[in-house]
Amino acid sequence: MARTRLKDIAQRAGVSESTVSRVLNHREGIAEDTQRLVREAARALSHHAVGDEDDLVGVLVPDLENPIFSQWADRLEADLFQRDAATIIATRPRGTKGEQHAFHRFLRLGVRGVVVVSGFHAQQHGPVAHYRELLGEGINLALINGVREDLAGTFISTDDVAAIELAVGHLQDLGHSQIGLALGDEHTWPVRQKVRAFERLIDVSTAARTIAYTDFSYAGGYEAARELLRQGMSAIICGSDVMATGAIAGVRSLGKDVPRDVSVVGFDDVSWARLTSPALTTLRQDVPQMSRAAVQAVLASPVDSRRPERTELLVPPQLVARESTGASASSRRTGSPVSADTMRE
Amino acid sequence: MARTRLKDIAQRAGVSESTVSRVLNHREGIAEDTQRLVREAARALSHHAVGDEDDLVGVLVPDLENPIFSQWADRLEADLFQRDAATIIATRPRGTKGEQHAFHRFLRLGVRGVVVVSGFHAQQHGPVAHYRELLGEGINLALINGVREDLAGTFISTDDVAAIELAVGHLQDLGHSQIGLALGDEHTWPVRQKVRAFERLIDVSTAARTIAYTDFSYAGGYEAARELLRQGMSAIICGSDVMATGAIAGVRSLGKDVPRDVSVVGFDDVSWARLTSPALTTLRQDVPQMSRAAVQAVLASPVDSRRPERTELLVPPQLVARESTGASASSRRTGSPVSADTMRE
Repeated sequence: MARTRLKDIAQRAGVSESTVSRVLNHREGIAEDTQRLVREAARALSHHAVGDEDDLVGVLVPDLENPIFSQWADRLEADLFQRDAATIIATRPRGTKGEQHAFHRFLRLGVRGVVVVSGFHAQQHGPVAHYRELLGEGINLALINGVREDLAGTFISTDDVAAIELAVGHLQDLGHSQIGLALGDEHTWPVRQKVRAFERLIDVSTAARTIAYTDFSYAGGYEAARELLRQGMSAIICGSDVMATGAIAGVRSLGKDVPRDVSVVGFDDVSWARLTSPALTTLRQDVPQMSRAAVQAVLASPVDSRRPERTELLVPPQLVARESTGASASSRRTGSPVSADTMRE
Repeated sequence: MARTRLKDIAQRAGVSESTVSRVLNHREGIAEDTQRLVREAARALSHHAVGDEDDLVGVLVPDLENPIFSQWADRLEADLFQRDAATIIATRPRGTKGEQHAFHRFLRLGVRGVVVVSGFHAQQHGPVAHYRELLGEGINLALINGVREDLAGTFISTDDVAAIELAVGHLQDLGHSQIGLALGDEHTWPVRQKVRAFERLIDVSTAARTIAYTDFSYAGGYEAARELLRQGMSAIICGSDVMATGAIAGVRSLGKDVPRDVSVVGFDDVSWARLTSPALTTLRQDVPQMSRAAVQAVLASPVDSRRPERTELLVPPQLVARESTGASASSRRTGSPVSADTMRE
């Protein structure tokens, strides 16, 4: 090891060069704490030498349990790799604190940009100072599925209004008039968009409650389906595919069949949506297009930290009709014609 | 901003304090490069001040496309969170280089430990110097599903021998004698373990080839199933659930039915394995127990970098019998008794 190197480590660790030498050569008789100091200093310097990777991008997803989030992370990594950029992934365990910590880790790694999927930028209220901190450091932000008016960055979202219009149209074509909506946290942008579109299409002034707010999990779908069936619904649009599989179980728990008695529509089109029994009719998020747009945004020239720009992009979803939706019982009885102009796989 | 702070940044960036002040206060007329230098210096110092998180753990998975890997990452994150440790996740895109880069990122973040799922430690040969580098830095290593004799660390693997014994036993109980095995890369430890166990149980000296090496994907399962069916197999044990869904499609592509004509066994028990049609009979990896063991290993006292220890842990899998396996056609014809002592959900 070069003499200058020993000197640097000694200086950083605040010990003598001979101590450094003894620690690095595994000699006995050095206090644990001193050993640790020296090792840390050596590590810091050696990795400073390796240098930051130029094009490292941080990807933050809520969790990796919901397959749509792992699909996002996987797709973003692949698209970044194609553009010679490396990816580091964090989840945001339980609350803003986790998101702040993840952002700080990204900063320490010297990332060029950060992609956040369904983060706090999707919340109607709540702190986003940590997002502004990134922008202030000249870091590009791509924010997926959520819009905050009071924040700069590139916002890329699935067009939830179009999604609800497609789903409601599909179900009405099948003869359904009692259509319910099963969603998670009502304070997020995607949920509010869906509700707004839904209330424009469906008469919600009746006594029956047509929207159930639970959460986007299997259990959430199960509970929501039972609640909506008790309100007389014959079709349920869910906020995620995971939720839709729970809804199917919820329908069955009341002795009814999907799609004979009740139609269920999912959201996302995760990889296994075509494998379930019955295969899920769902709204496919255009993850490939959205991912490409996000990668382009984060690898663009660094943001001007004085005047960070704001861009909004809405990407239309696609209705994928499979087996979990079918003609309503009433339309089958009356023999009323059912149009079949929706895309079938 | 305190004067000392300006001075530190100026020193680090190699510019005057007034330049630092002008950049940080967004004054005009500073060259782009200088601005960048100053911002980087300010960032480095501010994040040095924030300090490393004490208990940060790096998790490296091959990708997040295969649901078993996202399940691993999700579970490890949850278990680490419970022990007040934070997680940073990396994938290893295409080859050793990606793994080395990920390790360096973890080092730069000052991680306390690293968990590697199905990494290069599972390869029979190939470079593992970057693993030794981590150990040399006093970083704890937990290495999932793969064993290298020439490497220290805590190795935690599903017992593949037990897995094959369970699967073969289950299929033989159902009357199958023509059993094939569909696997990926034959140079990895888990694959070699499975093959060894399989060859002890099945007579592979016949003309028919009973093992197909493709890869662990849907396409790999499709191809392997068609190959094994042409060799006269009536049951196929796959190396992953994703592969098993491909195998089912492969069986159907030859005009045959699962499980009437051919039985298919998966591996992993991913979250959607019970939702497929037919629901997958599979070998469940005990991810919860293995994850807890890995977390315990990486949060233990730092390894003695002079004499890193080596531990091996084998965790038994469980056979989960669902709908993709059934009595063999020949046993149904002859009416021979089929024992039914395997666990059914």
